[in-house]
Amino acid sequence: MPQGGGREPQVAGSFALAIDAMGGDHAPDSVLDGLEIAAERHPKARFLLVGDEARLTALLAKRPRAAKACTIRHAAEAIPGDMKPTAALRVRNSSMRIAIDAVAGGEAAGVVSAGNTGALMALGKIVVKSLPEIDRPALAAIGPSARGDVVLLDLGANIVCDPRNLVEFAVMGDAFARAVLGLTSPSIGLLNVGSEELKGDDRVRQAAEMLRESPLAGQFHGFVEGHDITAGTVDVVVTDGFTGNVALKTGEGAFKLVGSLLKQVFTSSLAAKLGYLLARPALDRLREWMDPRRYNGAVLIGLNGVVVKSHGGTDALGFAHAVDVAMDMVTHRFNERIREGLAALPPRNRPVVAEPGAAAR
Amino acid sequence: MPQGGGREPQVAGSFALAIDAMGGDHAPDSVLDGLEIAAERHPKARFLLVGDEARLTALLAKRPRAAKACTIRHAAEAIPGDMKPTAALRVRNSSMRIAIDAVAGGEAAGVVSAGNTGALMALGKIVVKSLPEIDRPALAAIGPSARGDVVLLDLGANIVCDPRNLVEFAVMGDAFARAVLGLTSPSIGLLNVGSEELKGDDRVRQAAEMLRESPLAGQFHGFVEGHDITAGTVDVVVTDGFTGNVALKTGEGAFKLVGSLLKQVFTSSLAAKLGYLLARPALDRLREWMDPRRYNGAVLIGLNGVVVKSHGGTDALGFAHAVDVAMDMVTHRFNERIREGLAALPPRNRPVVAEPGAAAR
Repeated sequence: MPQGGGREPQVAGSFALAIDAMGGDHAPDSVLDGLEIAAERHPKARFLLVGDEARLTALLAKRPRAAKACTIRHAAEAIPGDMKPTAALRVRNSSMRIAIDAVAGGEAAGVVSAGNTGALMALGKIVVKSLPEIDRPALAAIGPSARGDVVLLDLGANIVCDPRNLVEFAVMGDAFARAVLGLTSPSIGLLNVGSEELKGDDRVRQAAEMLRESPLAGQFHGFVEGHDITAGTVDVVVTDGFTGNVALKTGEGAFKLVGSLLKQVFTSSLAAKLGYLLARPALDRLREWMDPRRYNGAVLIGLNGVVVKSHGGTDALGFAHAVDVAMDMVTHRFNERIREGLAALPPRNRPVVAEPGAAAR
Repeated sequence: MPQGGGREPQVAGSFALAIDAMGGDHAPDSVLDGLEIAAERHPKARFLLVGDEARLTALLAKRPRAAKACTIRHAAEAIPGDMKPTAALRVRNSSMRIAIDAVAGGEAAGVVSAGNTGALMALGKIVVKSLPEIDRPALAAIGPSARGDVVLLDLGANIVCDPRNLVEFAVMGDAFARAVLGLTSPSIGLLNVGSEELKGDDRVRQAAEMLRESPLAGQFHGFVEGHDITAGTVDVVVTDGFTGNVALKTGEGAFKLVGSLLKQVFTSSLAAKLGYLLARPALDRLREWMDPRRYNGAVLIGLNGVVVKSHGGTDALGFAHAVDVAMDMVTHRFNERIREGLAALPPRNRPVVAEPGAAAR
């Protein structure tokens, strides 16, 4: 999980992070409450707070720690949650755009927004731009498993992927697990419909071959299946954006179903209610461990800067966790690690790469 | 869920089902124990029990209900769990093959096996053969949701699918939900990375267009996401075999993780143990409701006969449920429904069908 503490961000610009203050269901209040927590966790970090200056000034007046850490920059507009990415790209004075411009211009090392996901991905790719070594940025996040946290990517940035894309996701997932989970040699699995070498389509089989010949070979566990994600079989699970998005949301849905059924169980009788009270400390620990806020912060990786998407409906604690993830990436030389990893791969045109999703070579 | 009861199977042959007695981790004992339960639930059904005659005769002697319902047919061999499908196809005197031959020959309306999945799928397709209207058979199963049971297909029979395949899966899923869940007008969703019309790849968007113009239009809910599976947003969730397999196993993995964490919770302290005892009746009901055995029985649909795969590791109760699913399909004119549904679709060559997984039209 993201580690707090007072490490000094190694950044060239004046700000560790630019914060889109106006994105998310409960913005700007929840964002500022989150920064009040984050400012205590990262006492040396400075944040560029972008949004409606008058509102933000008033809100900061009641949040002394955030006020000390933040510089406000005015943005006249905010991107609505349902605006299409193509439309969002044309809104030059939105809080999201101005925050992202600060990353592109080198003023801030990263940006955190709880706003429109599609808009953030599009602005990230077009304004911050991909690392030159990367074909396509990917969306990554951390989830719970029986053996610690697990990194899953891509979560929807790339619906159709070729084998090389999957290999690049493995390199980025490796760097992410090192930076954010603090692992020294994360194990990597490629999501498939079976663990045998012959399973799956050509795309995943070719990606597996490429990984076995890459510098990541020692960390590559081979194919993993859906149940391996929560089993913690590997530290990093690599897949295309379609499958990853479905897997993430299916897992979340399953957790949610059990949660609501347990609520029914513990209110179903007087004895069950009493049982709940007795088991409550342990159940609370479980709830805390499974808390989606603890896993908040999906990261668009492969860009010339750190771009973190907080869940739109999260609260202050969730937003503070998204800031933790961004700070971990900023302080742990995340992008340098990716560039080193990619430089060690053979050049893109060496292996024959099939058309995305093609059935036969 | 599968309904028991004494409905008379509407079958031409002498047997409702052929049973592969030798497939599965605990075969033949668990299979025979399962048949002892199934024989009581389906008192008028006759089963063709295929396997080692001497062993089966001895086991049936201790299971009077199964003994009354079964006729033994000897098979000298059994397909090992790790045998490749291509090798399994060459073993002519295996219990699985002889059971499937009985379906292909019209002696039995369906087959149930807890053996090698790949072998069963290959034998089903090659020996029982696809319905002439169907391009590709699919693997379907039932899972739990917040609003009742949900049908998910394809679960791995077709790794790469085109839009027409997905539409055919919808027709088959509709027939399956009617036959096994007893629904009169099941709602159908197409799994995607977002619910908006423009989300996803061309493949799912084209399939959605085709469904909106098909006789299923009134039942078609549109796109659904991973979390909609367990939310019960629709009765039938349609997807390709790669995504469906990952979704199924990810959901199972998530349930399993919560289960093992709850076990830790309720043994973590004396108070928690006491709390468990008090809440136990309600927790037992929850466990029963979530019991994987209640959802046992994946069905290879689209064939000239009913082919049901029981989980290899299941026990007697799980096997009996797989028999229930097969009996429901046999008694509810399942294949006739599929043929009617497919006859109502426009012919395959009318809509322009993209290459599987192609990114652009």
